[in-house]
Amino acid sequence: MNGTDLPRLQPKIRRVNLDTGRENVVVISRHSAALRPEIFRGFSRVELRRNAKIMLATLIITDDDSLVGPDDLGLSEPAFRRFAEPVGSAVTIAPAASPASLDAVRAKIMGQTFSAVDISAIIDDLTHYRYSDMEIAAFLISSASFMTNGELIALVDSMARAGTQLKWRNPIIVDKHCIGGIPGNRTSMIVVPIVAAHGLTIPKTSSRAITSPAGTADTMEMLARVDVGVEEMKDIVAACRGCLVWGGHVNLSPADDILISVERPLGLDTREQMVASILSKKLAAGSTHLLIDLPVGPTAKLVNEMEAMRLRKLFEFVGDHYGISVEVVVTDGRQPIGNGIGPVLEAQDVMAVLANDPEAPADLREKSLRLAAHLLEYDPKLRGGSGYARARELLDSGAALKQMQKIIDAQGPPTCCTDLGNLTFDVTASRDGFVSGINCLQLNRLARIAGAPIDKGAGIRLFKKIGDRVQQGEPLYRIHAFERSGRDLAAAGTTAYTIDSEESNLEATP
Amino acid sequence: MNGTDLPRLQPKIRRVNLDTGRENVVVISRHSAALRPEIFRGFSRVELRRNAKIMLATLIITDDDSLVGPDDLGLSEPAFRRFAEPVGSAVTIAPAASPASLDAVRAKIMGQTFSAVDISAIIDDLTHYRYSDMEIAAFLISSASFMTNGELIALVDSMARAGTQLKWRNPIIVDKHCIGGIPGNRTSMIVVPIVAAHGLTIPKTSSRAITSPAGTADTMEMLARVDVGVEEMKDIVAACRGCLVWGGHVNLSPADDILISVERPLGLDTREQMVASILSKKLAAGSTHLLIDLPVGPTAKLVNEMEAMRLRKLFEFVGDHYGISVEVVVTDGRQPIGNGIGPVLEAQDVMAVLANDPEAPADLREKSLRLAAHLLEYDPKLRGGSGYARARELLDSGAALKQMQKIIDAQGPPTCCTDLGNLTFDVTASRDGFVSGINCLQLNRLARIAGAPIDKGAGIRLFKKIGDRVQQGEPLYRIHAFERSGRDLAAAGTTAYTIDSEESNLEATP
Repeated sequence: MNGTDLPRLQPKIRRVNLDTGRENVVVISRHSAALRPEIFRGFSRVELRRNAKIMLATLIITDDDSLVGPDDLGLSEPAFRRFAEPVGSAVTIAPAASPASLDAVRAKIMGQTFSAVDISAIIDDLTHYRYSDMEIAAFLISSASFMTNGELIALVDSMARAGTQLKWRNPIIVDKHCIGGIPGNRTSMIVVPIVAAHGLTIPKTSSRAITSPAGTADTMEMLARVDVGVEEMKDIVAACRGCLVWGGHVNLSPADDILISVERPLGLDTREQMVASILSKKLAAGSTHLLIDLPVGPTAKLVNEMEAMRLRKLFEFVGDHYGISVEVVVTDGRQPIGNGIGPVLEAQDVMAVLANDPEAPADLREKSLRLAAHLLEYDPKLRGGSGYARARELLDSGAALKQMQKIIDAQGPPTCCTDLGNLTFDVTASRDGFVSGINCLQLNRLARIAGAPIDKGAGIRLFKKIGDRVQQGEPLYRIHAFERSGRDLAAAGTTAYTIDSEESNLEATP
Repeated sequence: MNGTDLPRLQPKIRRVNLDTGRENVVVISRHSAALRPEIFRGFSRVELRRNAKIMLATLIITDDDSLVGPDDLGLSEPAFRRFAEPVGSAVTIAPAASPASLDAVRAKIMGQTFSAVDISAIIDDLTHYRYSDMEIAAFLISSASFMTNGELIALVDSMARAGTQLKWRNPIIVDKHCIGGIPGNRTSMIVVPIVAAHGLTIPKTSSRAITSPAGTADTMEMLARVDVGVEEMKDIVAACRGCLVWGGHVNLSPADDILISVERPLGLDTREQMVASILSKKLAAGSTHLLIDLPVGPTAKLVNEMEAMRLRKLFEFVGDHYGISVEVVVTDGRQPIGNGIGPVLEAQDVMAVLANDPEAPADLREKSLRLAAHLLEYDPKLRGGSGYARARELLDSGAALKQMQKIIDAQGPPTCCTDLGNLTFDVTASRDGFVSGINCLQLNRLARIAGAPIDKGAGIRLFKKIGDRVQQGEPLYRIHAFERSGRDLAAAGTTAYTIDSEESNLEATP
């Protein structure tokens, strides 16, 4: 045949200035000879190859030669970064085959269960960006209606092995984790210095906010640098026995971030995925003793004790399987913990507690002490039952503050500005009475509209908590924002507080 | 508050030359004041608003002012077309809320069933492009593991109502449909003129190829124009009692096209979705009597009689519910029907049968007569059992050919060239023996690699069928391609034929 001798046409890669987030996107000219009939549609999935390197991407077609010429293939910024080949490299482009592991997902959809081998292959394909959004959704949904214990164990294992796996010389590595949902609640930033001051090792990595107004990493960033790599993190822990860094550069359980990027927009939130997400990260982090905080409240992630217990048992089951000591505490999630919501305001709360400031929020102090007490009990040298007293001693004496300062110095100075939003808006009580409920979901949403966590100084300062007496017109909370967000706040005027005339109408503590 | 008086910043829309297929994509400058923190990520889902008009889209961010300036919002070509507002129109952009109907999908994932109201809302959101790919996947997968009869009935109903609904004055509107998968098999183009010549009304809309080398619309396009709108289609049917047009401009069951765009890449293929897809289109088309062709064979969509029967019963159940007379015939799907694969070659087969050319493929003629016979029996005036004889009479007398010519004239002349691919490649028998099997999947793939259906004249001409004696070196089939595809064919050398030494080894007819 005449045609076989023709060299296969290989476009040259170049960058196009398009930020396409987690998705790899490539742009091809409609006049490119490489645009074969099988892949002629916009938003087709395609496969780029250069030697042994393969990358999957979503295709966009253009007629605009100034964007991408007929002999070129434009890679969006994330695609260019992930492909990591020089500009001008020749590549082949072909329709993307579905990842092989998708067969198992199809079988699961039809009611089969995954083998450990299936799950390992799926997680491997996921972490190599071989799954499209809809394929990730297929995996998540196929697992959402039922997941066996065996599947869950295999999932945690595969996810934990997919990225960095930290090893520590110390036999006891303690850690804590909260499932989130409660505004404020920055206990880690108090627990870590207490526990490290005592002498236990607590290498804490935290996430940034995804749907909330602040994550621990966002808040810690007001005090110190948090973008720390694995080796530097090890040095900090060696020097301070603890750290408070962002997990993003440490690459623990990278599959988790990919799964979350699809779970969130779909609003999928299953127990099994939550357990896999948290425990895979903790396994990879080398934790041996883990405390998990499950807040329960009407606007928390868990709305009753029954839900909390089912989740607790799942954490315990998987923890036991891997020989991690997992302790689960169910806490009061009826309202925010602390007075501030948003990175700057939350950092102020934390430092006030550590500095024993008389104005410091008592609930944040008390909860932090209680959690620290649990962790300190893991120290074999400590007399059983004395964890709380020891935690309080470390906090009251200033040892925890000193330890925090040491951690801050080791991580380095913050790079962000910490001005509080100059645009303020007070929400006041519409009647006399007692605060009987605070809607955490509404406060989170409001703080985000105000600009948090992108605007570090945006957020909410609470003046009242549940049970407080209020008079009509008295401020309940103050919103801090900047000019650029202020215009969005008008629509967010509805109050997040419920006020009853009778003190006895307070919602029951869980 | 100071900020509330600021006008909400509204970028002006412009077109960007990006073909993003079914997906709406908008490009924003990283310096745009409208790029709020909540929507700052590439590939976020966003919502565009102008007055009452809302469109959901996927966001891409650029630093390149020459592509999109800070005051502009670039709409990809499909997004611009669907939004249908002039360049320069001011819009607001906000994070996209999940469509409300997604709550029902989440409940379904957790084991609930859909109500008819749920399904109606889902289909409404789908057809208004409010579902992202992953949300469409969520709907499909949630329905794939189980779907009740009630859900299926509601789905067919909602899908049928979502687009054009054709009404006809004639009380009998016949139609036929094949579930596909068999190369060649262009029976509709013979059945329609026979049935119309007899006097029944058969307004046939067909699809273009999605994963096959030719759809009926692609093949008919070699003979006549097929891009026909609703009103023109009605005129053609009024004049000819039949038509053979592309369904794309008629907009029957538009939700089906959207669902298929996600089903295909995921490889989801459930009975319920197939029935919903086909019957929603036929209901919308106003069909009263429908013949469904289910080919069964080792490389067909249905591999055994059991599968065919389950599918048949589902068609009958839904058809009965809607008072459509549905008849299902199970046919031989072991090998291609006719000798040509690809638009030009298949059109040649069709015209040879209609013209009673002695070289015309006998299997295509016979199958078409058999299907036409079933449809003719729907005519109350025809004596029971005489359908086949009547069909043959209409074909042999040239009445069917004359009717086809009338339909072609009514639809107008073809706009494509019909040259056969000049690059040819013969695949020959590797041994003496009998053809015992032909792999339909391989032939489809090969014809697509050769360039079909984009290259109309690309495809395959078969010289041998199952049971034929062959000698070593004798041609089994000939691939037709053009220079631009020729280079891809070398990799496709494996033969799609199985040759056995014994005639008795032939696979059993289903």
